[in-house]
Amino acid sequence: MNRNHQWLYAKQPAGKIGPDTFEWHEAAMPSLQAGEVLVKTRMLSLDPANRAWMMGKTYRDALEPGQVMSGFTIGEVVESQAAGLAPGDIVEGDWGWQEYAALPARRLFKRTIKAPLELLIGPLSVTGLTAYFGLLEIGQPKPGDTVLVSAAAGAVGTMVGQIAKLAGCRVVGTAGGQDKCDWLVRELGFDAAIDYKAGGVRRALAVACPKGIDVYFDNTGGPVLDAALSLMNLRGRIACCGNVSQYDVEKPAPGPMTVPGLVVTKRLRMEGFIVMDFYDRRDEAEARLAQWVAEEKIKAIVDVIDGLKNAPQALIGLFEGTNRGKRAVRV
Amino acid sequence: MNRNHQWLYAKQPAGKIGPDTFEWHEAAMPSLQAGEVLVKTRMLSLDPANRAWMMGKTYRDALEPGQVMSGFTIGEVVESQAAGLAPGDIVEGDWGWQEYAALPARRLFKRTIKAPLELLIGPLSVTGLTAYFGLLEIGQPKPGDTVLVSAAAGAVGTMVGQIAKLAGCRVVGTAGGQDKCDWLVRELGFDAAIDYKAGGVRRALAVACPKGIDVYFDNTGGPVLDAALSLMNLRGRIACCGNVSQYDVEKPAPGPMTVPGLVVTKRLRMEGFIVMDFYDRRDEAEARLAQWVAEEKIKAIVDVIDGLKNAPQALIGLFEGTNRGKRAVRV
Repeated sequence: MNRNHQWLYAKQPAGKIGPDTFEWHEAAMPSLQAGEVLVKTRMLSLDPANRAWMMGKTYRDALEPGQVMSGFTIGEVVESQAAGLAPGDIVEGDWGWQEYAALPARRLFKRTIKAPLELLIGPLSVTGLTAYFGLLEIGQPKPGDTVLVSAAAGAVGTMVGQIAKLAGCRVVGTAGGQDKCDWLVRELGFDAAIDYKAGGVRRALAVACPKGIDVYFDNTGGPVLDAALSLMNLRGRIACCGNVSQYDVEKPAPGPMTVPGLVVTKRLRMEGFIVMDFYDRRDEAEARLAQWVAEEKIKAIVDVIDGLKNAPQALIGLFEGTNRGKRAVRV
Repeated sequence: MNRNHQWLYAKQPAGKIGPDTFEWHEAAMPSLQAGEVLVKTRMLSLDPANRAWMMGKTYRDALEPGQVMSGFTIGEVVESQAAGLAPGDIVEGDWGWQEYAALPARRLFKRTIKAPLELLIGPLSVTGLTAYFGLLEIGQPKPGDTVLVSAAAGAVGTMVGQIAKLAGCRVVGTAGGQDKCDWLVRELGFDAAIDYKAGGVRRALAVACPKGIDVYFDNTGGPVLDAALSLMNLRGRIACCGNVSQYDVEKPAPGPMTVPGLVVTKRLRMEGFIVMDFYDRRDEAEARLAQWVAEEKIKAIVDVIDGLKNAPQALIGLFEGTNRGKRAVRV
């Protein structure tokens, strides 16, 4: 165990990401400085954002070829020269696709909730919090509202839909393939789910949302955003969480034709957010999510793949829609 | 005076509006019912919205060929069968392009502020209130913020820019032609103004907004919206007021490519509004606007054209950018 295996970000993809986007690398074990801890990666979060970071500067710097591939991580402290952290502690961070990292304590968040790691990497962490704050704070759903969520079978979407049901809303999702749609209705309690790959999304959504849409939680942009805009009710809210339909493509689609026209006439609010903006209230939200999961009011859907070696294929598959719920790699 | 001259909306324009969009018509004088008043039109407001109403249902029904052309109006009561309204009262409404109308009292708003009619039709009415509420409530400017407003030399833009200066902001506008731009800086106190017709809008705005844009008051959509999105600061606000660049065209431009991408990564808020949404606070806002105008803290810019006959040409000119400030027709 004196080597540190890593996936490097090898080169910017021209269109879709592929195996050659990444490069397997064996590095020396990192050495500890004062104030640092050595963490052993236990879980690696796979997120559409990983792809977005390849496109240029976003809310963080763009990925640069040659660097360790970035990603949210959960690990265990194996050695500590930092106050407040001891071997065995479970910590969260963003040290990326590697087995070990030496990090200053300020870059780590100590997890104190007792839960399986696959919950701590998703439903009770970034993904769950994204759904929680995005829906409740940006979307402001009221009982009886119709809430639409795109990428509904994904990590964030599965949480959004279930939280919206708890908030007393009619919940409609879009997902790729009839199987996923059936599963959303049968297993997660969605009122309806629309297969966006089947075509005619706007018409299908109009049928599924007979009273229009009050809140659209947008994970995808693209055609579902276009359709949602046309069906939004007066003073509807669009929580802009992601644009995954445009991340893994050669040429992005044109923007939504009805922006800003319909935004004006329907007095819509489109608002973007990043989960980190709400981290001052993280404890409160995590406690509620953990309680809902413990009481089985929410099903935490996780899709864990074993082995760091499989991380590239797992991310590629995310854009092919092979996952249900939160996809993570157990290292 | 036993005839009522009107402009009818004759047919939906294929591209730009033209003289044949309207038809001059001589109707009988309307007869009064109980609860109604007969108003003589004194001023007719010309607004980009007039054109938008031709495109289909918006926040109101679409215009139908054959009806009297719609528009905001100010008039004088000449005969009353309604309680609370007496001959000589000045009232506001939306009875459109005609000399007389018989209307129930509930469709009229009695103006009590003493001010010239050309102020009551714009700066101290719909246009001023649009600027006031859109900037202050939707835009939420803070002292030191950079505020951009498009169509800055227009009825709403001239007010937005001056109110933003009173709010302690750096104010940048876009307008068509260097003359208008020079005038905005020289006469209205804008810190900079960019001629969008000269090309290179994004680069020019980047120079004019060295600290980025915190609030964009969007009257136009189109290329200025595209450029503004790329220059918005984190948590910037876009008050979506209009889309005038796309009203009088044959084929609308594609939507903004960076929506929703930049909305997410910069946590932007794009929010549409219609001034009527704020009419419960109309008195308060009008009183402040009237005070600012009286104290010469704001210059009320009006552009009055005489004669109902000239209304079509005055509206056509609005889309050619021949106006400065609020364009109205004195009837």
